[in-house]
Formats: sequence, structure tokens, C-alpha cells
Amino acid sequence: MTQQTGTSTEHSEATESGLRRSEANRTALQAFVGGKPFLVDVRPAGEVMPALRERVVLTSGAPLDWSAYEGGQRRGVLGAVLYEGWATTVEEADRMLASGEIRVEPCHDHGAVGSVTGVYSASTPVLVVRDEASGVVGYCSVYEGSQRERLTYGVWNDGVRRNLERLRDVLGPALGRALRSHGPVDLAQVMRRGIRMGDDLHSRTTASSALLARELAPTFLGDPELHGEAGRAALDFLCRNDLFFLHVGMAAGKAVADAAHGIGGSSVVTAMNFSEKEFAIRVSGLPGEWFRAPVPPFQGKFFDGFTEQDRGDMGGESLIMETNGFGGMASAAAFPLQEYSGGSPEWMVENNRRMYAITLGENAQYRIPYLSRGIPAAIDVFKVVSTGITPTIHAGAGHRDGGHIGAGIYQAPLECFTAAMEAHQRTYGR
Amino acid sequence: MTQQTGTSTEHSEATESGLRRSEANRTALQAFVGGKPFLVDVRPAGEVMPALRERVVLTSGAPLDWSAYEGGQRRGVLGAVLYEGWATTVEEADRMLASGEIRVEPCHDHGAVGSVTGVYSASTPVLVVRDEASGVVGYCSVYEGSQRERLTYGVWNDGVRRNLERLRDVLGPALGRALRSHGPVDLAQVMRRGIRMGDDLHSRTTASSALLARELAPTFLGDPELHGEAGRAALDFLCRNDLFFLHVGMAAGKAVADAAHGIGGSSVVTAMNFSEKEFAIRVSGLPGEWFRAPVPPFQGKFFDGFTEQDRGDMGGESLIMETNGFGGMASAAAFPLQEYSGGSPEWMVENNRRMYAITLGENAQYRIPYLSRGIPAAIDVFKVVSTGITPTIHAGAGHRDGGHIGAGIYQAPLECFTAAMEAHQRTYGR
Repeated sequence: MTQQTGTSTEHSEATESGLRRSEANRTALQAFVGGKPFLVDVRPAGEVMPALRERVVLTSGAPLDWSAYEGGQRRGVLGAVLYEGWATTVEEADRMLASGEIRVEPCHDHGAVGSVTGVYSASTPVLVVRDEASGVVGYCSVYEGSQRERLTYGVWNDGVRRNLERLRDVLGPALGRALRSHGPVDLAQVMRRGIRMGDDLHSRTTASSALLARELAPTFLGDPELHGEAGRAALDFLCRNDLFFLHVGMAAGKAVADAAHGIGGSSVVTAMNFSEKEFAIRVSGLPGEWFRAPVPPFQGKFFDGFTEQDRGDMGGESLIMETNGFGGMASAAAFPLQEYSGGSPEWMVENNRRMYAITLGENAQYRIPYLSRGIPAAIDVFKVVSTGITPTIHAGAGHRDGGHIGAGIYQAPLECFTAAMEAHQRTYGR
Repeated sequence: MTQQTGTSTEHSEATESGLRRSEANRTALQAFVGGKPFLVDVRPAGEVMPALRERVVLTSGAPLDWSAYEGGQRRGVLGAVLYEGWATTVEEADRMLASGEIRVEPCHDHGAVGSVTGVYSASTPVLVVRDEASGVVGYCSVYEGSQRERLTYGVWNDGVRRNLERLRDVLGPALGRALRSHGPVDLAQVMRRGIRMGDDLHSRTTASSALLARELAPTFLGDPELHGEAGRAALDFLCRNDLFFLHVGMAAGKAVADAAHGIGGSSVVTAMNFSEKEFAIRVSGLPGEWFRAPVPPFQGKFFDGFTEQDRGDMGGESLIMETNGFGGMASAAAFPLQEYSGGSPEWMVENNRRMYAITLGENAQYRIPYLSRGIPAAIDVFKVVSTGITPTIHAGAGHRDGGHIGAGIYQAPLECFTAAMEAHQRTYGR
């Protein structure tokens, strides 16, 4: 019943280009269904990501000119510059960014994915995940905590700074120590169980977070170096944050999607993301190109006291989970999210069934209990265009002045997929 | 949408006895929907359960003469006598049990519920759960571990003995210390989240076990008395056993069901259990009476290498979970159990919907995500008889020579409910 191998329409296989695409897509699909991500460490970004040894700030989305950033993403990047001490005033930071003295680059170009604003700089503690199947490494910043005001959600102030310092000086090092002491954590195992326990692994990571905390807790107790204040703070942080695993899953998703990227002829989607201004996708066989469209409308539910009028787009790359078949692609795994994602279990099942029409196979590693089948694997731009069905995306909602105020759904805009398909046809023929 | 209060048929309310039953049932229902169980301690049974200061062995099921026990339950009771050192040979133990020098009594009479054979003696470490709504305390033995051979599953040998000694001398005391150091754990909170994460809280307690381990882990790290070998062994045990929570849930279920027991006029079921020979139920308004029937057929799935021919009945009171509306009464919460429980998500949903026809209300504390409603609460023997629908029970399967070999479903036999209804009518009128 479970398909692990790719299929293409007979029509496309009838041409030489169709045959090449079909073969390339099988390779890309295999990268997704055979991915074996392991969490190996937490390290300062500047130690493990070469580009971040310099004065570079990474941020979410297909690249934009610095002048195009106006909202939360702008505030986040400026905050990172001040946090690193590269400038002492916002004006100075802005000038250095405008002149190129400090560069702003896309996370995706450096093996990383960003949550919401997705801001990284040299001292950001990052989760290091290695896909043992491909050897590819993915990075994601450590979850910043559940308080509403975070750099992640476009806020910069003294509270945000103190929290980032605590992440850098206390929590990050202790988490890294615990992971090195424990040895690589098999994330496919955690996510396999998470998807059976109500997680979509995007808007909901409650189970995966609990399972990871439970996996690491005995290591903290067994390692006397972690018995002190830092170790206790780090274990508390792991145990108290139901979204801790989101960033871990994102690093895993990035490593696996990058293993599927750059395969000549493949029409499989290897990244989807948001900047403040745009939604964009990348395709395996067309590396270096982003296919862009305006940010689509958001449908969801806001925390008490907030409405759609308060919301602002400020980027986000947690869609790497959908790229891997989780999140809105696996909505029937996470009925507890119903109020935020579609309104009813029936809708979630129907939506999930639709997602199989735009993917090349199923990832049997991650089975959705209600559907008794693996999550959809490898989104194909040709299938999206021919069906008119676009990926459903679960996502958090940010306040336009900064802060986390709800969660809901985006429907990816068709035009990027059409543009990608046309580019694929220009490059590889019809 | 959610009913928290009891209902009875208009017909029954038309009589004086019907009115009294209706009012009594509202009180019983309230005990279930308002239950607030907290895990407070782990202690040797002999310290907290007065009857167990003497030479008494508790076991599962409505009481039988010692001579009636022939299989796993007999082996379990004999094992307990040898373990306590009250006899040195099986023959001597048998003689002391036959003569009444050592008494065998039902768990339910002493505030406890037994898992499978359900054997308790003075040194058994027990989980102590207090229902803060009623003040009633429930006990259950600590989970014996996941190895196939356990006293719980009717096996007695040197390996079982050594494991019980470790539970008594190492794990039990450390778990008790951790709980006292942590303070009472709100189990309704854990179960509320567990039921949203794929647990039925009977055959599957994966999420609840992870959540409880995660709740207690920081306490182990924060309490220097738990940094040594015993603390590490106890935290490991908590973190490695997905069924650890089953016994915790059972103690909670017992405390809450006992709070609903003994209400004059009530026709609500307050216990269901198995001995080797019988299935039996107890009814709130008829304390002291058990309504019995032969053990019904078992339908399930066996672990590799085992078949129905290997199976033997050896008692069990984990049905306290169904008595509280969990397990087979909440099958739509636990689609991952589908291979063991009904075969398909569709059957689980249909079964779950049926269970609402035999209960007086819903327990909104524990919401089933797929159904968007609380678990069925307060099984009414009149409703069972009038609909002909009996409770569905999720349960483990034991090998006739001892050991855990699978899991599946029992359908409770109608005749106990009919007998209970008739006894109720004799006592309280029609």
C-alpha cells in the first residue's frame, strides 16, 4: 500500500526530458524517504557555519535588498547587529547594513532555516543535525522561549537581549554538552513517534519535544558537569517548552531537503519560505533560483485580545517541515490543532488526502495513524500545476509590531509553481 | 455540546425510584467529571494500606476460594508469599493459603486495583493517588518493567524475584523521594494531554508516560539526594517505559471511581474486573455485591511467535480505566492502537460513538481530538441493558504459562449488567 518510489505521468515519461525528470525525481524522493537525521550538537553559529565567522546576518526568505525590509524582519536584523556589538545605535547599524559593511544573506544559502524573522549572527547557538543517509548537515537556531517578545518575532529590547545572552552563555553550552555526552539523537525515531502522537511537527511539536526531553534527561543526571545551575536551567528549558522541538525538526528538515537539492532534471520542491514581502520556492533541478509570489492570505485563530488587524508578515522558513511532508501536508496527524488549522477533523483529513495528489510518494518512516499511511513525500511542481492544488502550510502568526499572536494556515500561491515549471521546461525541455 | 450532568430516561424519572436513581446518578457522574487526582507518593503497601500490614495477598477480580485459582493468578499469589518469606516452598505457601493463615483478598476492597494478576503484599511499592475533589485515595503497584516475565503476568522465578527486590529497594524509594521532593503531580493535567496525544490510557500510555517523566526529570536533577545510583536508575526507569503511566492512571481511576461508589440509588458502574475465571462489575448503589459472568472471548493481536492457543486468562483490573471512560471507551483517541484494537480507525470511531449511548455524560476534562468531545463518563447499567451495548475493553494478553504476549479487545458480557439492573430494581424498586 505504501509507495516509496516516484511516479510520473505517462505523458511526461514519453519524452526524453520526461524520462530524465522521472529518474531525477526518483533520486530526490529517495533523499526524503531515506533521510536519517541525527541531532549531534549545539554550537555557536560562528563556530560551525563558515559564513557566520564574518559580519553577516542571516534572515528568512528569498533575498531582498536591505532597503526592502521594513517591518519585523528589519527590526530583527538590526537587533542582531546591536546584539553582536557591531554597532551601538540603530542608525549606525542601518548605515552599516545599507553600505554592505554588514551583509544580509538568506539562511537557505548557508545550510540553515530561520524561524519567522530567522535572524542568525555569529553568536547564535545553533542545533546541528546531520542526515546520516547523505552526510548533509542542517542548522537551526535554538528555540528562543515561549515569551511573546522575541527576536524571532521581530522584537528587540533589553528583555530580548538578556534572554539571548542567557541562550548564548548558559542554555546553548549546556545543551551542547548534554548532546555530546549523550551521543547523536536519532530524530527520525522521535519524529516517527511524534507524528503518531498528535504532532504535525510544525504548529504542534508537543510530543516530539517531550520525547526529546525524556531522551536527554538521564544524560543530565548522569553527567556531573550538568548538575550545576546551567545544566538545571537547560533541562528545565527542554522540559518546559512544547515547541522546543520545532527548531530541531527544522534543522532535520533542512538537512534532508538539501540532500534532495541540486539533482539535475528534478522538479521536486526543496524549499518554501517567506520574507516580509514574498512567498518563494526552490526546486531541486534549478539550484540558485527562487520562484516568488506575494505573501498569500492567512487564515487562523488569534490568541485572546488579537485580531487579523494586528498581524504582520515577517518572514519564516519553518515551511521546511511542509517541504518534508509534515505540517499542513500531514494535517490528519494533528487533530488537536483543529481550531487553528481548518476548523474540523473532517477538513484536516480531506486536506491531507489532497496533499498526496501533489507528491511523488509517501514517507513510510512517518505514518499518520488516522490515514494508516506515510506522510506525503516530495512535492512536484508539475503535479501542483496540473492539479491546481498547492501545499497547505501551518504557521504561527506574528504581530506587526512584533510578538507571537496566533497560528493558522497559508495556502501556497500557485504562481510560483507555474513559474518554476516553466523555468524547468526552459532548462530541460518539454 | 458537552454534557456534564446526568440524564435518565423520562420513563424512569416518572417513578419515585426513577427519580432517586436519577439524582444519585447525577452525584456519581459528578464524581467522575469533577475528579482531581494527584500523584503524591510511592510507598511500601504495608506502610499505607492497613490490611497489608498483615499476612494478606491482594489479587485481581471478584473474590474466589483459594482452591479456584489454577493458572497465572495462582502462581502470582504463591510467588508473593515466597517473596515475602512467609513460606520457603510452594507447598508450604499453598498450605498456608488453603488454611487461611495467609489470606487472599480482592484489591478493590482495599482501595487498590491490580494489573493482570494484580498481586500485592506488604513490601510491594505502591503509587499513592489522592482525588482532591473527594479526598479518596487510590493505590496501584509500580509498573514491574517491560520484560515478558513478571509476577504481574503470572511468572515467579529468580529473575522475577531479583526485579521485585530492585523495585522494592531501589526504584520505589527513589520514586517516592522524587515525588515528595516535587510535590503532588496533577494527573488530570497529564491525562488531559495524553488523551490528545494518542493515548487511550489503557493499552497505550506512551504520551502520559513521557509527560510524567518530563515533569519529574528536573526534580531528580535538582535534588542532590537523587544524584546517586538509585536516583539515576529510577529516572532511567521512568524515561524508558512507555507503560509506566498505566499503573499511575489506574490508581487515579480507582480513587475517582471509589468517590462515585456507595451512593444509594445509583446505577453507575464503579468497577469492572477479571479474575482467572470471571468477569465482574460493581455498581455504586449496591456496594459489597459483585455481578459475575464467565470471561468473554478475546480479540486481538499477538506479538511475533504467539497465537490465541498460547493465551490464558489470569485476571486484571486495568479496566478501571474503562470504568472512567478511557481505554476501549475512548478508542477514537488512540488510532496508533488500531492493529490491536478493532483493526481500523473507522471501527475505533464507530465503537467510541457507541460508548456514549451507555454513559450518563461526558468528561470534558479529557477531550478526544477526533470527536471534539469529552470521554464518555459514568456507565449506567440501565442504559447498557436497554441498548444491549456493553463496554469495549482494551487489554493486554497473557501467556497461559505466564508472560505478556499481545493486546486486544474484550466486549464486556451483558449478563452482569442485567443481573446488576435486576438487583438494583430489587433493592430500590422499579
